[in-house]
Amino acid sequence: MTKHQLESLLQQVQQGSTTVEAAAERLRDLPFEDLGFAKVDHHRTLRTGMPEVIFGESKTPEQVAAIFDSLAASGIDVLATRVDRARADAILERHPTAIFHQIARCVTLRQRTDRHLSSGLITILCAGTSDLPVAEEARVTAEIMGNPVELIADIGVAGLHRLLAQRERLTAARVLIVCAGMEGALPSVVGGLSSAPVIAVPTSVGYGASFNGLAALLGMLNSCSPNVTVVNIDNGFGAAYVATLINRDR
Amino acid sequence: MTKHQLESLLQQVQQGSTTVEAAAERLRDLPFEDLGFAKVDHHRTLRTGMPEVIFGESKTPEQVAAIFDSLAASGIDVLATRVDRARADAILERHPTAIFHQIARCVTLRQRTDRHLSSGLITILCAGTSDLPVAEEARVTAEIMGNPVELIADIGVAGLHRLLAQRERLTAARVLIVCAGMEGALPSVVGGLSSAPVIAVPTSVGYGASFNGLAALLGMLNSCSPNVTVVNIDNGFGAAYVATLINRDR
Amino acid sequence: MTKHQLESLLQQVQQGSTTVEAAAERLRDLPFEDLGFAKVDHHRTLRTGMPEVIFGESKTPEQVAAIFDSLAASGIDVLATRVDRARADAILERHPTAIFHQIARCVTLRQRTDRHLSSGLITILCAGTSDLPVAEEARVTAEIMGNPVELIADIGVAGLHRLLAQRERLTAARVLIVCAGMEGALPSVVGGLSSAPVIAVPTSVGYGASFNGLAALLGMLNSCSPNVTVVNIDNGFGAAYVATLINRDR
Amino acid sequence: MTKHQLESLLQQVQQGSTTVEAAAERLRDLPFEDLGFAKVDHHRTLRTGMPEVIFGESKTPEQVAAIFDSLAASGIDVLATRVDRARADAILERHPTAIFHQIARCVTLRQRTDRHLSSGLITILCAGTSDLPVAEEARVTAEIMGNPVELIADIGVAGLHRLLAQRERLTAARVLIVCAGMEGALPSVVGGLSSAPVIAVPTSVGYGASFNGLAALLGMLNSCSPNVTVVNIDNGFGAAYVATLINRDR
Amino acid sequence: MTKHQLESLLQQVQQGSTTVEAAAERLRDLPFEDLGFAKVDHHRTLRTGMPEVIFGESKTPEQVAAIFDSLAASGIDVLATRVDRARADAILERHPTAIFHQIARCVTLRQRTDRHLSSGLITILCAGTSDLPVAEEARVTAEIMGNPVELIADIGVAGLHRLLAQRERLTAARVLIVCAGMEGALPSVVGGLSSAPVIAVPTSVGYGASFNGLAALLGMLNSCSPNVTVVNIDNGFGAAYVATLINRDR
Amino acid sequence: MTKHQLESLLQQVQQGSTTVEAAAERLRDLPFEDLGFAKVDHHRTLRTGMPEVIFGESKTPEQVAAIFDSLAASGIDVLATRVDRARADAILERHPTAIFHQIARCVTLRQRTDRHLSSGLITILCAGTSDLPVAEEARVTAEIMGNPVELIADIGVAGLHRLLAQRERLTAARVLIVCAGMEGALPSVVGGLSSAPVIAVPTSVGYGASFNGLAALLGMLNSCSPNVTVVNIDNGFGAAYVATLINRDR
Amino acid sequence: MTKHQLESLLQQVQQGSTTVEAAAERLRDLPFEDLGFAKVDHHRTLRTGMPEVIFGESKTPEQVAAIFDSLAASGIDVLATRVDRARADAILERHPTAIFHQIARCVTLRQRTDRHLSSGLITILCAGTSDLPVAEEARVTAEIMGNPVELIADIGVAGLHRLLAQRERLTAARVLIVCAGMEGALPSVVGGLSSAPVIAVPTSVGYGASFNGLAALLGMLNSCSPNVTVVNIDNGFGAAYVATLINRDR
Amino acid sequence: MTKHQLESLLQQVQQGSTTVEAAAERLRDLPFEDLGFAKVDHHRTLRTGMPEVIFGESKTPEQVAAIFDSLAASGIDVLATRVDRARADAILERHPTAIFHQIARCVTLRQRTDRHLSSGLITILCAGTSDLPVAEEARVTAEIMGNPVELIADIGVAGLHRLLAQRERLTAARVLIVCAGMEGALPSVVGGLSSAPVIAVPTSVGYGASFNGLAALLGMLNSCSPNVTVVNIDNGFGAAYVATLINRDR
Repeated sequence: MTKHQLESLLQQVQQGSTTVEAAAERLRDLPFEDLGFAKVDHHRTLRTGMPEVIFGESKTPEQVAAIFDSLAASGIDVLATRVDRARADAILERHPTAIFHQIARCVTLRQRTDRHLSSGLITILCAGTSDLPVAEEARVTAEIMGNPVELIADIGVAGLHRLLAQRERLTAARVLIVCAGMEGALPSVVGGLSSAPVIAVPTSVGYGASFNGLAALLGMLNSCSPNVTVVNIDNGFGAAYVATLINRDR
Repeated sequence: MTKHQLESLLQQVQQGSTTVEAAAERLRDLPFEDLGFAKVDHHRTLRTGMPEVIFGESKTPEQVAAIFDSLAASGIDVLATRVDRARADAILERHPTAIFHQIARCVTLRQRTDRHLSSGLITILCAGTSDLPVAEEARVTAEIMGNPVELIADIGVAGLHRLLAQRERLTAARVLIVCAGMEGALPSVVGGLSSAPVIAVPTSVGYGASFNGLAALLGMLNSCSPNVTVVNIDNGFGAAYVATLINRDR
Repeated sequence: MTKHQLESLLQQVQQGSTTVEAAAERLRDLPFEDLGFAKVDHHRTLRTGMPEVIFGESKTPEQVAAIFDSLAASGIDVLATRVDRARADAILERHPTAIFHQIARCVTLRQRTDRHLSSGLITILCAGTSDLPVAEEARVTAEIMGNPVELIADIGVAGLHRLLAQRERLTAARVLIVCAGMEGALPSVVGGLSSAPVIAVPTSVGYGASFNGLAALLGMLNSCSPNVTVVNIDNGFGAAYVATLINRDR
Repeated sequence: MTKHQLESLLQQVQQGSTTVEAAAERLRDLPFEDLGFAKVDHHRTLRTGMPEVIFGESKTPEQVAAIFDSLAASGIDVLATRVDRARADAILERHPTAIFHQIARCVTLRQRTDRHLSSGLITILCAGTSDLPVAEEARVTAEIMGNPVELIADIGVAGLHRLLAQRERLTAARVLIVCAGMEGALPSVVGGLSSAPVIAVPTSVGYGASFNGLAALLGMLNSCSPNVTVVNIDNGFGAAYVATLINRDR
Repeated sequence: MTKHQLESLLQQVQQGSTTVEAAAERLRDLPFEDLGFAKVDHHRTLRTGMPEVIFGESKTPEQVAAIFDSLAASGIDVLATRVDRARADAILERHPTAIFHQIARCVTLRQRTDRHLSSGLITILCAGTSDLPVAEEARVTAEIMGNPVELIADIGVAGLHRLLAQRERLTAARVLIVCAGMEGALPSVVGGLSSAPVIAVPTSVGYGASFNGLAALLGMLNSCSPNVTVVNIDNGFGAAYVATLINRDR
Repeated sequence: MTKHQLESLLQQVQQGSTTVEAAAERLRDLPFEDLGFAKVDHHRTLRTGMPEVIFGESKTPEQVAAIFDSLAASGIDVLATRVDRARADAILERHPTAIFHQIARCVTLRQRTDRHLSSGLITILCAGTSDLPVAEEARVTAEIMGNPVELIADIGVAGLHRLLAQRERLTAARVLIVCAGMEGALPSVVGGLSSAPVIAVPTSVGYGASFNGLAALLGMLNSCSPNVTVVNIDNGFGAAYVATLINRDR
Repeated sequence: MTKHQLESLLQQVQQGSTTVEAAAERLRDLPFEDLGFAKVDHHRTLRTGMPEVIFGESKTPEQVAAIFDSLAASGIDVLATRVDRARADAILERHPTAIFHQIARCVTLRQRTDRHLSSGLITILCAGTSDLPVAEEARVTAEIMGNPVELIADIGVAGLHRLLAQRERLTAARVLIVCAGMEGALPSVVGGLSSAPVIAVPTSVGYGASFNGLAALLGMLNSCSPNVTVVNIDNGFGAAYVATLINRDR
Repeated sequence: MTKHQLESLLQQVQQGSTTVEAAAERLRDLPFEDLGFAKVDHHRTLRTGMPEVIFGESKTPEQVAAIFDSLAASGIDVLATRVDRARADAILERHPTAIFHQIARCVTLRQRTDRHLSSGLITILCAGTSDLPVAEEARVTAEIMGNPVELIADIGVAGLHRLLAQRERLTAARVLIVCAGMEGALPSVVGGLSSAPVIAVPTSVGYGASFNGLAALLGMLNSCSPNVTVVNIDNGFGAAYVATLINRDR
């Protein structure tokens, strides 16, 4: 039931062509979203500057390209994550202005002209170069969602001096995203150096007893720094999404 | 918004004291359940003969007794599961006609006089005497929910002749509930002897590599009998609840 | 020992050519199934309209095709699950009227003319498009087993309005099958909206801490909706099989 | 080395009583925090209104009381978490104005008079009454950290209508904390209804395959709502701490 | 159907008072064990010298004593495992000739006079004194089942010389039972020194990463000695049972 | 030190050319195996009829063939397990009388002429056709180790009648090897039907919650039949090795 | 066979009262340790200053005291670990000069007068006060084994400045022992600040997803600092034992 | 801030061109490593003879070669681990004097002429030939780090005599590295035969319940020999690195 249909029904009540009882009966089981719920969603997307997003991992190049097409048609920004070269080519063939971020495994298409840039900074750290794909997914996501972003790579806990040299840049951030595999200790250390919220992203980087990111995940969940929360293993996108929500100007 | 309030609003539209637009606006955000949703639930409870249920495990005797009181006030049947002697005493003090089922760790209060008994039989099997508390929880639950129930205890897969001797009783059931700990193999064997749906309940009975029911749970999920579904470890109540839904006359 | 042999033996007793003791001795160790047990199985297959089923996963195309041949020879319906394009081609070459369901990875051959369609509806829901192969396996299975089936795709718990919009269709079902990966929360929510039995199928869809369906499996086993039972990860076939048993007219 | 000592050294250089080389040598290995690092920490505590916190779990009543004493002496607010009745009594004996929050297992002492209350609302939801201790720990923490807090209890995913009835209150929150045990599905559903950041707290509530909160934890990490991050099992304090950081006025 | 009933039926056929068809019909569904199956079991027990066994762990002292009574009445040997002092007292009160083996947590009652002692030796080794309860359960079990038994305690892999000093005794055994907790390495080493079958019993002895016997269990399953098989954690009884079967004279 | 060298030393003592002290000193640290230990091993191999064995899994075709060569040179029987077609070809090229057992993934070379066949029967059962490779590895191993072997395939617990039809063959066996994946229930059932030792082999057959054989492994370790012991997942060779030891004539 | 017996045998050979062949035969199977092996062990204990050690956890006070007595009789230093107050009292009653270290749960008895103190320093760090029992067990062990020891407590990775302030003391150590629970990140950070070997001890301190030390254990095994090795959860004794071996003067 | 800059600042203070306060202010936030911290690291590398190391696993051949180039330019020794043939070729093309160690999967380039060889011996043992790659990685690493190394392969616990034959060589070692997969028992046995520190390396060799090295890892962590510490699964490099630190002459 659209808003139009709802008004029609009420007009029928007003005009006496439908009884109060019959109208009440029909309204009782009113499907929720038919009241314009989805439209509100759409409004929110436009207002917040969030792009439409495609998770490419389990889709064929054709499927990814087709969904990308339909989302792009609305004139909004579009982000595709977990796309390899083949999936990216299928998109770029039809959208030559889209950009393929190879390390991040993302494609972005910027169409909006009224983009608002948040006044707060999101700083992304990653422990080793192997964590870069996850950190870059976070960076690309945070940027198209309207955030100034700084990425500091190769800052491991075994070389504290490099981390301490970045202390000023840590302090400058409104939100921190910290990606780390292996023992996943970086978020705790960073959390102790900053009073900003830290979103920890365990990565599947490592071997043996890292168990594909489980060691890092458990480490982060047990962080002794109270400003740390955690997202799924390798979920750079999700970290950037939440960071954007936190970073929004009010 | 109650049904009464909804009709008032519609009457105002009918009478012209509220415009269509204002009414539409108010209805858009109408909380869902205020349209009598909960009452429908209540009707369903009355119609299906399902009792009200309290899960007693993490509640004090006082809390259990208080909730029991309020539920019993509606004149409906009441079931409390996971109640020990202390919790049961707190209930029976105020409800002398309630019954404490010690092995099943349940209290039941039967108040309805118009109970309908299903025409189908629920047969409950358990592998060892240690599985009896779970099997009895299922039995007590299934009985107060209006099912004829038969319980066959101490039927393990290592003594097939005892199981085979019960084949006729297996065939008579419309639904089977099979409780087993340790290796949890009984549901597969029973599933092969019957064409009825089998609800498997892994129990935490065992030691060592049973890992508190994990071995039985995994065994049942991997059953080679396709008529087997599984509920949580020790969840005799849940098995009986689903069995009741399946066993309902149509 | 066939029925014929049994009658021969009894005739020998009747005619005195075998003593009571000798006959008793021979009957003591009578193999079970030689009493026509298998034939009963066969009768049940014919009566219930269940097809013969091949699990194709660990078999070569030649093996799958050979087994399919021998089952098809009995004139009964045949279902092959977990078959890829190569296995399907091997079957279709010999059975041109068989159908390959690509997403469901199933081949079906319908041969029976006296099929009975159940009066109850099985509704299958899946959370995301990645869950479709499992949901489709359930749909194909449920259909060839004689059930009216409705499949509602892409209904996640993060977009409740889409789910609520389907509430009438949920209410119409006699049995619900709900397939979900990742956190596996959909069965709990659906279970709260319907009073029908819900068969939950965890899927291996997800990444990181989904641990190939373990997260969804544990979530479903711990469902707070008491009308939920669970089958193995990705086991669309098993869910449909049990749903068929529940859905049978009586 | 205090600031005073540093200035002394520089004065010696200025006065020529220490050579540049000797001073450089001494400064090279300057311990970090002696440059007033700890004092900055202290300043931050005063500025942000964060209380001093004691984690009481593995400490004796005497130890808890002694640490509480020393922290209270600074005139700042003090929070003790995971304290039972015995530990609380040890504190209250010496601090009669402190308050013991029994369900939350917390003691708070409010001493500051210049407290600033954030303009944003933190809304805390919990799935069942058994999750209340964790939710209350979050509430007590968030309140003493200067946030307006609203707590909505007993809102499970199996009873969506109760959740939907709270939709306006969900929309009003700047940050959401969602505590749930068993299958841990509530954060996903709430995340879909709100565009605020959701901090998910798995609780150890449940039995069997809940594995002391593991099922809820995995479910939350795999949430299909991108605005969800996760903290450790039963970590109501940590959730409130991060929520406070997000909720801070800028 | 007892043997008597079977003969009656056959006599009726012989006498013509029952037709062949009616008798065949009745025999088709003959319950298996009614043909004396259980009696065969009984015969086997008498022949092999196996005692009747009670697993005491989840039973009350009264239950254990009652079952013990009924088994003892048959004049056969009786073994109760996993019985503490209270359970043992309940038995010994009624059976003063029974013996309580405190470390083994077993009660034995020897009643048979015609006991046959196997000509083969079962040698039981355990790694540390903490493994003794499991090793003693194996010893008591093996002895009442008619085996000569030798128990060598405190033979760890970190002190090879003590193990090597026992090489002759290892060689003398027809079957070896090796109980070990912690890393569970002893069976591999023993397996390399002997060509007899080795039954490995992981024990729950250890702490930390022993995970209640899991480490020992996995170690034993991965033994590089091909003559090693494994039973459940702490299952001294089961190891002795199988050892008895292997050790039987032919 | 060979026996010859030892005797030389003693002769030197006898003849006075070496003092008692010097000889004692030299003998103190005598390496163990130099006392002919390895030769004893060799004798045992010849006496027991055990073949030499190569585990081919992590070796190149060239390595497998080279080791096979050197073992075959001693004139003894040789068994290579876990060899694919390429590894087998490398062996057969040089040993045309060797046999490649494709399903078992084994190559055997029989060279001994004085082979002794045990008087006892080893019966191998497997639950499904997918378990055949493991069962065949056990069969090939047991046969070349001098045992009469019978293999009964496709005997699942969901079709008890097929299993019961084989009861006589179960009774005939001196040792049973039971291979099963999925829920791994077959050993328990077989163990209940036979009084012979049962060696259970979990297989990695299955999907989803079978976790590559873990479910079957746990099931077998928790078997309620006391005559069951367990070997590693897919370890058909090990099961046959132990079965051979048990089956040896005395 | 003692050295004396060996010399006797050789003398018999020398004197001709035993033939070379008979002596060779007797020596072939000479048990290993009878050649004085155990005595060598004893010598090593005296030489290295290692005390005799009792692991008290699974022993009664009487057993602990009895073993302590027999060890103390040799005049050597004695260490008992994992002893509570009751076990300690049982020891101290008979050995009034022994010392009970309450936090470390250890009793030490120093009897040697010729103790050698290593020239190298062992520095022990622990992350929180809850880790102190493990760190103290390491300290007491290292001290009685002849090492200078320094213990730095309450040095968490979330407060780097406290750790950095201790840099000089870290540099002074020849071996480092680092105890940490929760996320177990401290060894990595310390490992990066020092070039000495770091022995990491995960502790069972934590809650929820710490899984009794598993998170810390996995974190330490995946350390990005290459100078880190790991011992069992809570194994302060083992860490100090290895540190002593490394710290020995050469 | 370099040392030069620091001295400049102090000279300005000395000369009065900067006030004490301004200098103190600037020094307060002095980045740590700018005080020559990195240079100290470099000095340590030169002094200790440690090579520069590249972990090749997740890098392309081009990346590995480029990093190798830049490290080699400093004239120091270089070690690349986890490099396959393709990565090795990319390095060797530019550095013809570098050596590819195929089994170890390492490339080494020796450039230093002033290499110091430690006076202590590192002995590496591995249980089976499949463990050789890990053992060889340890050997290559230990050698380029300046240690005399001995590698003893194929020494399993199931063949003790081979191990005991090497006892003298075990005693000769200052540090032992023991690599083992499957049950991982070798370090315990070796630890009992030697009083040197034993670094245990679990390998991922095995199948089934070895769970990619988990069984070996747990076994080693639970070692009953107190001189054993553990590194990550397959981490031959890390074991050699720590062994080098221990083996250093003082």
